[in-house]
Amino acid sequence: MNRRITVAIDAMGGDFAPVSAIEGSVDALAANENVSIILVGDKETLEKGLEGQSYDKDRLEIVHASEVIKAEEHPMIAVQRKKDASLLVAMKLVKDGRADAVISAGSTGAMLLGSRKYVGLVKGVERPALAPLIPSVNGFSLLIDCGANVDARPASLVKFAKMGSIYMEHLMGVKNPRVGLLNIGTEEYKGNQLVRETFPLLKECKDINFIGSLEARDVPFDKADVIVAEAFAGNVVLKMYEGVAAALMSKIKETMMSSLKGKIGGLLIKKDLKNTLKVFDASEHGGAPMFGTKGLVVKAHGNSTRKEIRIAVEQCMTFVEQDIAHLIEIAVQPDNQKEMTENDI
Amino acid sequence: MNRRITVAIDAMGGDFAPVSAIEGSVDALAANENVSIILVGDKETLEKGLEGQSYDKDRLEIVHASEVIKAEEHPMIAVQRKKDASLLVAMKLVKDGRADAVISAGSTGAMLLGSRKYVGLVKGVERPALAPLIPSVNGFSLLIDCGANVDARPASLVKFAKMGSIYMEHLMGVKNPRVGLLNIGTEEYKGNQLVRETFPLLKECKDINFIGSLEARDVPFDKADVIVAEAFAGNVVLKMYEGVAAALMSKIKETMMSSLKGKIGGLLIKKDLKNTLKVFDASEHGGAPMFGTKGLVVKAHGNSTRKEIRIAVEQCMTFVEQDIAHLIEIAVQPDNQKEMTENDI
Repeated sequence: MNRRITVAIDAMGGDFAPVSAIEGSVDALAANENVSIILVGDKETLEKGLEGQSYDKDRLEIVHASEVIKAEEHPMIAVQRKKDASLLVAMKLVKDGRADAVISAGSTGAMLLGSRKYVGLVKGVERPALAPLIPSVNGFSLLIDCGANVDARPASLVKFAKMGSIYMEHLMGVKNPRVGLLNIGTEEYKGNQLVRETFPLLKECKDINFIGSLEARDVPFDKADVIVAEAFAGNVVLKMYEGVAAALMSKIKETMMSSLKGKIGGLLIKKDLKNTLKVFDASEHGGAPMFGTKGLVVKAHGNSTRKEIRIAVEQCMTFVEQDIAHLIEIAVQPDNQKEMTENDI
Repeated sequence: MNRRITVAIDAMGGDFAPVSAIEGSVDALAANENVSIILVGDKETLEKGLEGQSYDKDRLEIVHASEVIKAEEHPMIAVQRKKDASLLVAMKLVKDGRADAVISAGSTGAMLLGSRKYVGLVKGVERPALAPLIPSVNGFSLLIDCGANVDARPASLVKFAKMGSIYMEHLMGVKNPRVGLLNIGTEEYKGNQLVRETFPLLKECKDINFIGSLEARDVPFDKADVIVAEAFAGNVVLKMYEGVAAALMSKIKETMMSSLKGKIGGLLIKKDLKNTLKVFDASEHGGAPMFGTKGLVVKAHGNSTRKEIRIAVEQCMTFVEQDIAHLIEIAVQPDNQKEMTENDI
């Protein structure tokens, strides 16, 4: 039998807090025997939310937290001042060994900062990386980093490549995952200084399947399983995905509504189209893991519903069962990357 | 009467060279009285291509060039070695005062490098910026820079903002164009070092309408007329546009073909949908101007057809008629930006 895994959920973060955290937890408990959940947030609110819900009471616990970090707050100030925030209390549960993983749909910045202080980083990692799965025409790719590592150095990008490879191989079941470096052209001489310095380092790595540079236009076309990017560029990729898809869809809808013919045509393809678009909806692929933390930290989308929270819980279970944090720790150990640390100064 | 404007066209650059250059020139001459065109490339090939075409022979000239710079060549090496390349010969015509503007659908890198050497830069500009018009839900925005200024400094981004504003106001007729800075969040403290340093400089500029940071997800939603970005990030925006739109469309087509209902529905909306997608096709908005060069340099899309070449010629005419190069020269003069040059060291 597998060991029981405990997931702490920041119940107060996200657009639909605390409802989606509560309902998602109930669903996750019903679907999985080996998981326990700790809901962190205002005790009274959470108890009220759980009223009338049917779930295994032995596997659901509430831990009270008196404060909430809001999305619009300055993350650094919030993390410093709101020591009793639901997010940070949930993270402390991981540090104290009471939980194996933490999920939040709240402030990304606060999660990245909080995870350094309250969860702790794997040796050899300076800052955690945020790595969402982004859709492609055939499935999805892992985009690493979209987080707070702006102005990262080449050695960090090499670590992203290694951590991403391990995740895709051991959690997503992709054999020998292809690693591509986001660039403005496929030729080796192209790119900014960071990319030009990172390219040869990735080429030298024997433990990853580096396939070279990848242009942004190829990102949705399943050319790589792991897309390595500095966080600013990664963020642009992620949000362009969202923006262009949304803009195009609003235009298509407008087209359909502009004539009777369009309305009939639209009606005929509506359902199939909706399924197609689901494939291109990042939220379908669960939360974005943060790599480099000692326990798993999962950033759920701000507008996560019960379904996304349930998926995120299951993601945590696989992560812990496969001991991916340990694999990552070995891969990024300073001893394993002498060639990088030399270039890293 | 307006003065006659002469446009030099690199007839050998692009996927459909020299056919689209020849046909586009013929169309441009027929549609506009005040333009002369110089086609630059292999004389024999061009003469043969013009056979049977009907055009005003007094306004079309061929200038021979024995070499061609190919898209896959290293731009720096190509520009150094192929001194008789059609692109560079066309650029020299601008330098020598024989042409007012130059158009090429060839290598962007070679154009950016060649324009420094063969066209010359406006005082106060170190490297030309490439600024395509990108589609939005209501029209289009100017994205500056997508060119070769990777790792640009804050002062360069301020110049981009000024040059872009002038172009949008005087060539595209947008009154008091809104300038947004591409960032990973809208809060002032967000971003990488470059963006954080650029933000206050743009805020101080009295000659532009700076509206603050702009997230990539808002790029297609007409939130700004001029989107200022460092070239690496700008390139990612441009190519994500292309990639996501293409991927989404291939998925939608797949959906339509997967069932009889879908096929019928697709048939009904096909024509309207095509028109919608045209709006989201960057090539419809003509070539991307390079700013900061003494004469106008227009980068036409690699797969430009006769139509895009004709539009690019007309773009050159307006640019010269409105004397936009001169307006840009005044705006970026070192005297006008003391606060910038201090920050630029």
